[in-house]
Amino acid sequence: MKIVLLLTYDGTEFSGWQKQKNFRTVQGVLEEAARSVFSQEVKITGSGRTDAGVHALGQVCEFEAETTIPPEKIRECFNRILPPDVKVRKSAEAPAGFDCTRAKKSKIYRYRAYFSECEMPLSERYELRISKKPDLAAMREAAALLVGEHDFAAFRAVGSSAKTTVRTLHSVTVWAREEIGATHYAIDVCGNGFLYNMVRIIAGELLAVGQGKSMEALLKALATGDRALLAGTLPAKGLSLLKTEYEPPLFGGTEE
Amino acid sequence: MKIVLLLTYDGTEFSGWQKQKNFRTVQGVLEEAARSVFSQEVKITGSGRTDAGVHALGQVCEFEAETTIPPEKIRECFNRILPPDVKVRKSAEAPAGFDCTRAKKSKIYRYRAYFSECEMPLSERYELRISKKPDLAAMREAAALLVGEHDFAAFRAVGSSAKTTVRTLHSVTVWAREEIGATHYAIDVCGNGFLYNMVRIIAGELLAVGQGKSMEALLKALATGDRALLAGTLPAKGLSLLKTEYEPPLFGGTEE
Repeated sequence: MKIVLLLTYDGTEFSGWQKQKNFRTVQGVLEEAARSVFSQEVKITGSGRTDAGVHALGQVCEFEAETTIPPEKIRECFNRILPPDVKVRKSAEAPAGFDCTRAKKSKIYRYRAYFSECEMPLSERYELRISKKPDLAAMREAAALLVGEHDFAAFRAVGSSAKTTVRTLHSVTVWAREEIGATHYAIDVCGNGFLYNMVRIIAGELLAVGQGKSMEALLKALATGDRALLAGTLPAKGLSLLKTEYEPPLFGGTEE
Repeated sequence: MKIVLLLTYDGTEFSGWQKQKNFRTVQGVLEEAARSVFSQEVKITGSGRTDAGVHALGQVCEFEAETTIPPEKIRECFNRILPPDVKVRKSAEAPAGFDCTRAKKSKIYRYRAYFSECEMPLSERYELRISKKPDLAAMREAAALLVGEHDFAAFRAVGSSAKTTVRTLHSVTVWAREEIGATHYAIDVCGNGFLYNMVRIIAGELLAVGQGKSMEALLKALATGDRALLAGTLPAKGLSLLKTEYEPPLFGGTEE
């Protein structure tokens, strides 16, 4: 039976998704839990990888296991064993022929930052502090330039490889919220696929534009693919994979 | 010169505010930093104490120091030395005759909880998980009963002492917000003074009422002072001291 899981984790103490010898990874911890739940070796495949320090509210993974446990009960079996920083939100039997890496999907990532005159300890774990207040209108104008199908060659880590660098972004939304002592920003990027470090480079460039950088560089980067035109890659701690959505939806459309 | 500081801290790794031998406390860490900033022993007085594990966005403290550092620069001097989990948001010279423990003030505390079918690692650090969804209207009805001047004898830890148990609550507000995988609740309690564990007992009782407990117990507790009628004291991690407001305001009214 093929099972799909909807996962959430705090990435702080993980060396990313992918299993690596001598490193604590989400895949590694899940496979260890699966071995204990099913008393067999289980190979878990993620819908995508997340980097060291990146968080998730809606990661999806799948695996084959021989079991009589009802699919929806598998969640609890995992959660009893898993450490506090990774949990299974939903479990279900996969649709016939489903393959989480190949099936058509869209993902939403969120990058979080806050502006404050001093470091705010209660925000530091999941948000990047910025020390110059960005202009929201400028950020939104730049965000709109990224929506649609583009060659995002400039928006990936130097040296990374991918067959094509054309991707479609369905939306890029910038939120701001005033709270005590800080203004909090969220940049939500929804698309059909992402290049390595793409969201962290987009978020860095949008914040830079908000802080006064000309939008020319972004336009030129889209046209030329030159990574050097864009701002630096932001740190992992501000990034979360919010949703991984398949068509038709897994888990009976109850991922929310 | 008497200096006042506006502080924020993540209480997770502190054994509370008050200095204790062999324990890491906010007061202890601040006095150590002050010794280094001013090259003299400095006794720091908090506007109030917070318990082990309780957080703050707006704690106030004061101290006397001989220094030529401009008051508003003292913040940076502290922040360069302080560990990441406690920071100074503002520093200023205290108004003439000011005493942070005696001056008339109001405080706002927030208790945070979330409802979800499973533990959410990204919420666990600062919010209490509840496994039954509360009814918001019932919580708000119960909250309204607490506003005004009452004898809150039932709303304090057994064995604690205070000259009087009469306090005035200016407002008790219950917020709810839907997010991915969870509903988040905030209970904001604003008042002129608080008994030991008072906010954690109030929050526990409001959530219990939301989950179906009759409001009779709350009314009887207000009338009789019987602690046993109310729900248990909630854990510290969900509690933050949001604001400490003096009249006239410290820091030129820029605490926000």
